[in-house]
Amino acid sequence: MGDKKRIGIGLIGSGFMGKAHALGFATAARVFDLPFEVDLAVMADIDEAAAERARRSLGFRRATGDWRTLLTDPEIDVIDITTPNVLHREMAIAAIAAGKHVYCEKPLAPRAPEALEMTEAARAAGTITQVGFNYLKNPMMALAKEIIASGEIGEIRSFRGIHAEDYMADAAAPWTWRLDPAGGGGALADIGSHIFATARHLVGPIESLIADSVIAVHERPLLGGGGSRAVEVDDATRVLVRFANGATGSLEANWIATGRKMQHDFEIYGSKGGLVFTQERFNELKLYRADDPKGLRGFRTIMAGPEHPDYGAFCVAPGHQIGFNDLKAIEVRDFLAAVAGGPMIGPDFAEGFEIQKLVDLAYESSRAQAWLKVPA
Amino acid sequence: MGDKKRIGIGLIGSGFMGKAHALGFATAARVFDLPFEVDLAVMADIDEAAAERARRSLGFRRATGDWRTLLTDPEIDVIDITTPNVLHREMAIAAIAAGKHVYCEKPLAPRAPEALEMTEAARAAGTITQVGFNYLKNPMMALAKEIIASGEIGEIRSFRGIHAEDYMADAAAPWTWRLDPAGGGGALADIGSHIFATARHLVGPIESLIADSVIAVHERPLLGGGGSRAVEVDDATRVLVRFANGATGSLEANWIATGRKMQHDFEIYGSKGGLVFTQERFNELKLYRADDPKGLRGFRTIMAGPEHPDYGAFCVAPGHQIGFNDLKAIEVRDFLAAVAGGPMIGPDFAEGFEIQKLVDLAYESSRAQAWLKVPA
Amino acid sequence: MGDKKRIGIGLIGSGFMGKAHALGFATAARVFDLPFEVDLAVMADIDEAAAERARRSLGFRRATGDWRTLLTDPEIDVIDITTPNVLHREMAIAAIAAGKHVYCEKPLAPRAPEALEMTEAARAAGTITQVGFNYLKNPMMALAKEIIASGEIGEIRSFRGIHAEDYMADAAAPWTWRLDPAGGGGALADIGSHIFATARHLVGPIESLIADSVIAVHERPLLGGGGSRAVEVDDATRVLVRFANGATGSLEANWIATGRKMQHDFEIYGSKGGLVFTQERFNELKLYRADDPKGLRGFRTIMAGPEHPDYGAFCVAPGHQIGFNDLKAIEVRDFLAAVAGGPMIGPDFAEGFEIQKLVDLAYESSRAQAWLKVPA
Amino acid sequence: MGDKKRIGIGLIGSGFMGKAHALGFATAARVFDLPFEVDLAVMADIDEAAAERARRSLGFRRATGDWRTLLTDPEIDVIDITTPNVLHREMAIAAIAAGKHVYCEKPLAPRAPEALEMTEAARAAGTITQVGFNYLKNPMMALAKEIIASGEIGEIRSFRGIHAEDYMADAAAPWTWRLDPAGGGGALADIGSHIFATARHLVGPIESLIADSVIAVHERPLLGGGGSRAVEVDDATRVLVRFANGATGSLEANWIATGRKMQHDFEIYGSKGGLVFTQERFNELKLYRADDPKGLRGFRTIMAGPEHPDYGAFCVAPGHQIGFNDLKAIEVRDFLAAVAGGPMIGPDFAEGFEIQKLVDLAYESSRAQAWLKVPA
Repeated sequence: MGDKKRIGIGLIGSGFMGKAHALGFATAARVFDLPFEVDLAVMADIDEAAAERARRSLGFRRATGDWRTLLTDPEIDVIDITTPNVLHREMAIAAIAAGKHVYCEKPLAPRAPEALEMTEAARAAGTITQVGFNYLKNPMMALAKEIIASGEIGEIRSFRGIHAEDYMADAAAPWTWRLDPAGGGGALADIGSHIFATARHLVGPIESLIADSVIAVHERPLLGGGGSRAVEVDDATRVLVRFANGATGSLEANWIATGRKMQHDFEIYGSKGGLVFTQERFNELKLYRADDPKGLRGFRTIMAGPEHPDYGAFCVAPGHQIGFNDLKAIEVRDFLAAVAGGPMIGPDFAEGFEIQKLVDLAYESSRAQAWLKVPA
Repeated sequence: MGDKKRIGIGLIGSGFMGKAHALGFATAARVFDLPFEVDLAVMADIDEAAAERARRSLGFRRATGDWRTLLTDPEIDVIDITTPNVLHREMAIAAIAAGKHVYCEKPLAPRAPEALEMTEAARAAGTITQVGFNYLKNPMMALAKEIIASGEIGEIRSFRGIHAEDYMADAAAPWTWRLDPAGGGGALADIGSHIFATARHLVGPIESLIADSVIAVHERPLLGGGGSRAVEVDDATRVLVRFANGATGSLEANWIATGRKMQHDFEIYGSKGGLVFTQERFNELKLYRADDPKGLRGFRTIMAGPEHPDYGAFCVAPGHQIGFNDLKAIEVRDFLAAVAGGPMIGPDFAEGFEIQKLVDLAYESSRAQAWLKVPA
Repeated sequence: MGDKKRIGIGLIGSGFMGKAHALGFATAARVFDLPFEVDLAVMADIDEAAAERARRSLGFRRATGDWRTLLTDPEIDVIDITTPNVLHREMAIAAIAAGKHVYCEKPLAPRAPEALEMTEAARAAGTITQVGFNYLKNPMMALAKEIIASGEIGEIRSFRGIHAEDYMADAAAPWTWRLDPAGGGGALADIGSHIFATARHLVGPIESLIADSVIAVHERPLLGGGGSRAVEVDDATRVLVRFANGATGSLEANWIATGRKMQHDFEIYGSKGGLVFTQERFNELKLYRADDPKGLRGFRTIMAGPEHPDYGAFCVAPGHQIGFNDLKAIEVRDFLAAVAGGPMIGPDFAEGFEIQKLVDLAYESSRAQAWLKVPA
Repeated sequence: MGDKKRIGIGLIGSGFMGKAHALGFATAARVFDLPFEVDLAVMADIDEAAAERARRSLGFRRATGDWRTLLTDPEIDVIDITTPNVLHREMAIAAIAAGKHVYCEKPLAPRAPEALEMTEAARAAGTITQVGFNYLKNPMMALAKEIIASGEIGEIRSFRGIHAEDYMADAAAPWTWRLDPAGGGGALADIGSHIFATARHLVGPIESLIADSVIAVHERPLLGGGGSRAVEVDDATRVLVRFANGATGSLEANWIATGRKMQHDFEIYGSKGGLVFTQERFNELKLYRADDPKGLRGFRTIMAGPEHPDYGAFCVAPGHQIGFNDLKAIEVRDFLAAVAGGPMIGPDFAEGFEIQKLVDLAYESSRAQAWLKVPA
């Protein structure tokens, strides 16, 4: 540390994602040569006691029960938002207005208009922003992107993307905030946004789509007993898509896929090869090259190693594997590099808005039972 | 043999599928206790020399260049049709009229109206019929069906079905009969019918669907050089479906999935478990049971063994594996059991018609860009 | 058939392996252009009724309860022995003396001296012989051999071979003939001979070894109740080996490997690549090439297809998969090709003797607890 | 922090393992409720500039080029040794003498007598010690141990353990310190110690063994050009073992296994089930239960989730995956729990000595070509 410029972080939200972000900052500072000396300055949470507990366990200097104090805090350069997504807009816009850079957990907002408002505010203010679609930060995802860009698998024709888990599969699981329509939707909004992010990251803009959102568990018990509540949001949404570059494909978001824990999977077929990936084994990527010698062709399993950028910062040799929290450290590094004046690599608010537009449009398409064009 | 009643087979078509059927009869006679003594009586092919070559290599007694001679041949009880599907209707209806039982390769016909005509003719005549959707004959497919029927994985909610191969992925591959619109379509008609068959077999009737058929390679060279021809049929078709029992899902047919050789895959999620299968490893079935003890849950890979009906007829111990041609032998056994008066297990013409209806409707849906109800 | 010379087969043994051989002949005649017209002439079994039943179900012309009648039967050219291995020597030597060609199930004999006697008799008589190590007939095994021979993976350094199943894992499983020391041993003799066969096939002669044979289930109930019997043969044998070409490795035979059904696996590492195989998915071979571009290296899964010799005789396209019984058809083809005057490809009696020598030596090494040289 | 007692860490060595330990302390402090406030007090390295660079990047307060200053530093409670193993003995014994607790990277020492000396010094002084066999800290390894202890897979009979990588496979790779016989050996000493650790952890003490150590690349170029140097240590060592509890098995250490990156694999077979694991997918464990219903048996892939102790400290949901560095955080937590007066869970110096004894004995056995008993 020492001669590097200090950067002060104010983190809002002390839950699972707050912890993951804190770990991301702490680890990034150790494994990367960051442009700043990271100062974990303030932990904020509406629950002041929770903020104080998180401050101590996660290594922040101060804690507060009022996130608004970050806005005027001269020690804070970055406001990092890990609260429920219904709060993102208000916090982000206030942070932008206060001249802070903003790192916000995904999805950017419950609805696209809010995401657009945030994006425009950031653009007007010249704020550096980032949305936490952390699966994109995986070195194997970077490799997939590079393979595609290099032409190694030719012109991209087909995309099949899935994000399926089973945390809502049990019909006896109670009604929770995830089921609140105010959150923007159900499975597609919650986890499907990840697979839209991956589709855009690897194949590019989507031009049109048709979706089918379905409810499988129509009623769930209220927490604490005493009756049940009707479910209004999708348990699964399936989408047919057409990309601007001519590729076509499908996506699925499903939170009742009994047995699936993290099936963030894609299969991409080009004119000269194919790529297959599952987040459940995210240190691997499968590649098929039609140019391999006849008789010796097959999907090869590439295992992440130091030859794949960023992996080597964590592990000196292949096969050791980086973990989920390490993806957050890469995300932090990318963000701080942009704050330091470098190019923004990752999904910023503008990209978060594009993804949210697709989520909203898919729901609209499902209601209309019609193909819809993605508005520019 | 000896005291069993003889059954005379007349096989039309001496290509790949003709050979597979001949092997199916020969193997079935050895591994199963069939109700008949199988007599491979006549091999027919429009090319008389090809018929004679096939007669010798496949062990038939006689050969003919005129399939119509089978109709009046008193030694023929079964007419087995393995010709291109544009010929199925004429041959099957003539065979039914001649009082023969009919075993016909899939798909039943290029279009549903023809399939319906064939089905009604068979129904009126009381003919025993079968369509060669042989993947349904796999002991692991039977196990999947039994697991579902037993309630082991609860109420079925989600289906994801794929049939992807890459035999048309190379844009330099020439224009062939597979691309002739007279065949009823492209990838969906050719291989997608398999995945509709599997969907119906395991989950049941489909009530409505929306499809998107796309062409990726728009022009292909003519065989023998001298220009190219525009492609008019689908390279890939993706379908969203709703089943009568309330389950929902998607299907994909794709013959440009570079690297995929036999991705006839399904994932089925129920309220209490899940099933995962790929035809590329068709002696295995993966099962997840939500009722397994916490901490010990996971997809288990069940390997086909003698405890799974029909496998034991081929191999005395698990892990040995049956092959593609063995599926045909099971198909033959099921057909002959029905001819002998037993119940018809497998896909008959009526089922072949239901599948063809879905194929036709999917194409219509794609043209209309609209959800369509499956007519009763 | 017609203008081909007839070859008469006399099959001894109507059990599982007898059936597999009969299927092998029947299928080989249909899928390959054999040099002979195969005549399934006589089925022999000490149990005359069983012989007659098998005759009918497997399609032989005649049946006998006395295998010795085959010796003087002018219609018999080949004697095919699928009886328990304690009977192999007597039958094979009689068949050789009678001027018949001999196809014998593995292992060749309970002990190497008997195998040597059989080998020398055949050599003296100029008999064409074959031992049924059918896993060697797999197109993927041929591909592995070709990859090694071509230098694709460089100089071979390491071999790890396993043949593990679990059919004796249950301590309550009764004492059977498999446990009779007269059979030459336990797991190593029964299934370990397969992995010695594979090791020699792919890497070459073994120069020296040390083995450890162990018993895990020391006593087993007698069939039909009434006490138990001590187990005297190995449940597992592990062997360290040194090959003549400088490679080194290990082998394991294990019939109490709970959960394993057909773990006939090998891993071979050379100076430039590696090969990984499991019989449980025997239509696949994994290949690693150190020469692949950095960052794109990985084990690729090659799926058997028509480009791999012999596969195409069964299936017209990749991914369909051949089955266990198809391996027997390839074995039959190889044998008949040699009978017709071609080179002997497969394991003949001489090779069967070499394999048996390794089995015997391993047991001797285990008793001596010492490295032993393989005698020339 | 605040009311917890401070614990001062002095870390020696700023290379890959030094960084991994530093990350381990930093992450452990955030994800676990440690009994201490961790103070990363001093980073030591013989190269003072390297120490200073590491201090800054890894977040230590002070740096030194003289590790001996830690001995008398009152702010240091724990000395953490990540230097080459030839230095471990001197450092550890000095640390013990100075009253510090000692956390030492594996292997404990190049030879067992040195490991014994260290162990006895620690025992005499009552020092809390730990050796960094971090693969043992994996929640899936803990699950395997618990499954075995619970009797779920019955009496353990067979063990197959492998630790294979390919970092020395290229014959053009130069001679390095890894090849220095002073390090205690080659592949077995370097990576084979891991698989001995796993064998003891899961199955228990080994009673006797026979090993075969081999060299495949006999000469390697010197770094910087100018000739080559003979290789004197093993490229691969294979070991047959007998455990005290009656189980038997084999182990392999191999650093020329072209294509293998982290094949730290085991297969364990008991009387009622089996376990299969590979470090290349260390968030998974495969379990076979012979008690599952007939027809539904198979190896199930259990994916690490919050129900498996320690995983939940890193990720709130299954399928996210922890990484290699997270294993170090668990290791740190176990060590500090013991320092705080709890039971020592992990491998301490006494266990490190037992493992080293096996490594030494295997080399001795290979030289003697004889089975050797493991001395008490």
